[in-house]
Amino acid sequence: MSETPDPFDHPGYRAAIVDLLGLLAYGELSGFFRMAADAELAPTIHVKAQAAAMAIREFRHYELLVDRLTELGADPEEAMAPFQETFSAFHDRTRPSTWLEGLIKSYVGDGIATDFYREVAAYVDPKTRELIQAAFADEGKTEFVVAEVRDAIHADRAVGGRLALWARRLMGEALSQAQFVAVQEDSMTSLLTGEYGGPGADLAELGRMFDRLTDEHTKRMGQLGLTA
Amino acid sequence: MSETPDPFDHPGYRAAIVDLLGLLAYGELSGFFRMAADAELAPTIHVKAQAAAMAIREFRHYELLVDRLTELGADPEEAMAPFQETFSAFHDRTRPSTWLEGLIKSYVGDGIATDFYREVAAYVDPKTRELIQAAFADEGKTEFVVAEVRDAIHADRAVGGRLALWARRLMGEALSQAQFVAVQEDSMTSLLTGEYGGPGADLAELGRMFDRLTDEHTKRMGQLGLTA
Repeated sequence: MSETPDPFDHPGYRAAIVDLLGLLAYGELSGFFRMAADAELAPTIHVKAQAAAMAIREFRHYELLVDRLTELGADPEEAMAPFQETFSAFHDRTRPSTWLEGLIKSYVGDGIATDFYREVAAYVDPKTRELIQAAFADEGKTEFVVAEVRDAIHADRAVGGRLALWARRLMGEALSQAQFVAVQEDSMTSLLTGEYGGPGADLAELGRMFDRLTDEHTKRMGQLGLTA
Repeated sequence: MSETPDPFDHPGYRAAIVDLLGLLAYGELSGFFRMAADAELAPTIHVKAQAAAMAIREFRHYELLVDRLTELGADPEEAMAPFQETFSAFHDRTRPSTWLEGLIKSYVGDGIATDFYREVAAYVDPKTRELIQAAFADEGKTEFVVAEVRDAIHADRAVGGRLALWARRLMGEALSQAQFVAVQEDSMTSLLTGEYGGPGADLAELGRMFDRLTDEHTKRMGQLGLTA
């Protein structure tokens, strides 16, 4: 008998982890495609290439997550399928109309994803946690976004107001999609509330988790020079 | 006195190499963006991801080429600028109308680029050659394209005829852009004809080089099950 029980002994745990990894994987893949498309709009080759590199990091995360799904004996395509609509809806509702809006969307999306990864890492088995931590180890290569956005605001102060509104809309859409997933996917709520044995959060703690995600977003907006 | 003279002693050599690397780098960057956009059209997540990985390899080549430009003291953005129009024209004239056309475009583009890299490697200094060889060392990860195209032709024989026409148009557009560059960029012609000391090709040999590129393309089309 090992002291730490194996969460995979709980029949629902594996399904919940497959759901979680499927969600994260499809989010990364659709993030890659949207970021790459938006990167192409940048005015200089240099910014284009930096934004493309940011998109490619999403794809690397996708690959890590798919590897773990395969390791768990899951069909990655099946695991991702339930989340295609959610991400399509998010991306359709947040089509950037300028390259700066695209850049901010990539930055905001990358930031929220990183924070969410860090939060959920507490609720999963060590091997999945290790993977999740590896997937966000490459954060912090987005300083160029801060420089670009600050320059743009400096050149035209009206830009700051418009971009702040845009960032608020992005966060609103992200949160409403997250709530949609939470309602639809019982298995993930069960995972986060500790039903399969791991550390569990009550609903109040889950509420605080969303508050923390919002706080971190607000801080990031401040770094960009935007009021969230 | 070293036995092999340093080609960088020739005043035009460095400029010609910067031109060549700028051409290759911008080709890879624009290839990345077009391939990523076309990959998104694929019908399954699996094919989407494999096509995205092919696009990302182009971006890695881009990074290697930019590193070498920087090493040579050149401004990568300036080195690439003269070729933006050529690649824009090529991509504008070859917009795929189906995901299979997109996949074939990626495959054909990747193939021609690899063959061209191999050809020009003979005309450059050892360090540049090493870089060029590293850039195409990751070839051969495109078997999935062969499988997808063959399946599609098997399912509907009319598809094969249309795709063969498409592939011929791609090669025609690529060759006409290559000729356009050759006429505009004296430095590269000088490089290939050995004006700066390295091994030189006469115009007949350059003609044979284009013939070889066409032959290789024809062979690749045969592998796809298409008559070139």
